[in-house]
Amino acid sequence: MHLFENFQQIELVDIIEFLGTIAFAISGVRLASAKRFDWFGAIVVGFVTAVGGGTLRDLLLDVPIFWMKSSIYIWCTLLAFVIVLCFRRYLIHMNNAIFWFDCIGLGLFVVVGYEKALMLDYPYWVCIFMGVITGIVGGITRDILINEIPIIFTQELYAVACIIGGVIFSALHFFNVDLAICEIVTAVSIVAIRILATKFRWTLPIVKGEE
Amino acid sequence: MHLFENFQQIELVDIIEFLGTIAFAISGVRLASAKRFDWFGAIVVGFVTAVGGGTLRDLLLDVPIFWMKSSIYIWCTLLAFVIVLCFRRYLIHMNNAIFWFDCIGLGLFVVVGYEKALMLDYPYWVCIFMGVITGIVGGITRDILINEIPIIFTQELYAVACIIGGVIFSALHFFNVDLAICEIVTAVSIVAIRILATKFRWTLPIVKGEE
Amino acid sequence: MHLFENFQQIELVDIIEFLGTIAFAISGVRLASAKRFDWFGAIVVGFVTAVGGGTLRDLLLDVPIFWMKSSIYIWCTLLAFVIVLCFRRYLIHMNNAIFWFDCIGLGLFVVVGYEKALMLDYPYWVCIFMGVITGIVGGITRDILINEIPIIFTQELYAVACIIGGVIFSALHFFNVDLAICEIVTAVSIVAIRILATKFRWTLPIVKGEE
Repeated sequence: MHLFENFQQIELVDIIEFLGTIAFAISGVRLASAKRFDWFGAIVVGFVTAVGGGTLRDLLLDVPIFWMKSSIYIWCTLLAFVIVLCFRRYLIHMNNAIFWFDCIGLGLFVVVGYEKALMLDYPYWVCIFMGVITGIVGGITRDILINEIPIIFTQELYAVACIIGGVIFSALHFFNVDLAICEIVTAVSIVAIRILATKFRWTLPIVKGEE
Repeated sequence: MHLFENFQQIELVDIIEFLGTIAFAISGVRLASAKRFDWFGAIVVGFVTAVGGGTLRDLLLDVPIFWMKSSIYIWCTLLAFVIVLCFRRYLIHMNNAIFWFDCIGLGLFVVVGYEKALMLDYPYWVCIFMGVITGIVGGITRDILINEIPIIFTQELYAVACIIGGVIFSALHFFNVDLAICEIVTAVSIVAIRILATKFRWTLPIVKGEE
Repeated sequence: MHLFENFQQIELVDIIEFLGTIAFAISGVRLASAKRFDWFGAIVVGFVTAVGGGTLRDLLLDVPIFWMKSSIYIWCTLLAFVIVLCFRRYLIHMNNAIFWFDCIGLGLFVVVGYEKALMLDYPYWVCIFMGVITGIVGGITRDILINEIPIIFTQELYAVACIIGGVIFSALHFFNVDLAICEIVTAVSIVAIRILATKFRWTLPIVKGEE
């Protein structure tokens, strides 16, 4: 039984994906606005943040690019742009909700990326790679476009959450656990690790430079 | 009747494409020289500026990369490099001509990118996307390589001209207008918008940051 | 007779490839540590430095991405990370050995990239391009990720060595020289030019800016 085969669950998954896309796009638009980008620039950065990871994944797997099949990702980006434009004074009070959407979106993105490689019969380590790429490359590209060092490389346990999620998926799948359960446990783990890491300020050690 | 089927018009289109490629490459070489790049670096930045957009488009569409089929794009880039090297004192007086080639090249690049997606039966919004990507990604990659915020995100109506051009192409094509006329009207519109925007200093609003 | 068909020579080629991968990854990890990246960031930058060139080459050639077929490249990157972490006080005394591995790795990477295009029956200039891309794009991506101007564009005869190597390969192949000899002469030439260029501080001229 596959989670995505059930219509009602598809709807839930879709809603999560759209909320995640919007949350990712909002982070892009906000950082672009802090750099005084114009409307077009902010929308591009929002879109790239939301779809960049999945785009690189699909290029590497040599499958059709996911966002070229449906215009919904552009509408999510435009909605994110309008939200930032209209609610910019209140956004800071919405940080908590946006952070939640971002976490849940990340969990789902990693699961989607992982499964896309799994369906193509790649070994587990490639699946983990594709999950992580789906989750983090959008944010890396966003930071390159605004000419900053990618924040993911210096702060937060963001990527580690994706890796652990991928390892959990692989372990469960190895023991023939039902795919729907693999998906849910992986996504929940990623969300939980990310929230705990933010709450308790867990970080990875810095690599000490040479003298 | 298709514009590109007519031999004499092919020649005209080719000449426009080469002039556009040279103009794009010149902008790359000039910005690289301002950052004290060496010869190789300047040529690479010139080449990437000229072909970067079409390369990403071809990767996304999963078709053979256009510049791997003919070495003409390298020759155009080398010519652009020689022009900058030899005429650097006079380039500033050639700004007007270079700007014109750049505008015309942009118009053609967008049309070529749009049509490539159209021939593959993609919906209009994907065609517009591919036209815009062909037109702007070279300049974005150039600015990333010279470690600057992409100028297209903070200044000029450059990208908006590409989008409007794409919308015009879609509208004409929807009403079954002859493909050659679609191409010409689109390219002319893009050139006109870009020139008017530069002349009258039209810009998009900046996204205001949060307090 | 093909160099890579001989089992014992495969082993030698493999060892060279792993040493080259480790040397490339070390350069990524070291530069990331100088920017105070965390462990994950340093490993990503190391990996991208080692495989970035081959990845772009495989995307452009539309063939399966080489590092998705074997996990050895990740192990090489992790080993490079451990080396930097454990020996950071002694790394400066190992600079000579690392430089040698880096040179030999570069020679091999260019040969591998060149041949991959040659086997797909591309013309010589595409093969040279693919060799150069394999050799230099990893370092360019590394410098973009750490938010610096790519060092290859302003210093060292690094890329020129790759181009000359590609030209030598093409010339020998044109005259039907045995493939194994083409490979060895090309790799040795690249290593020699790179070492001589470093020793005698050969550089390309800077492109003079406009007044």
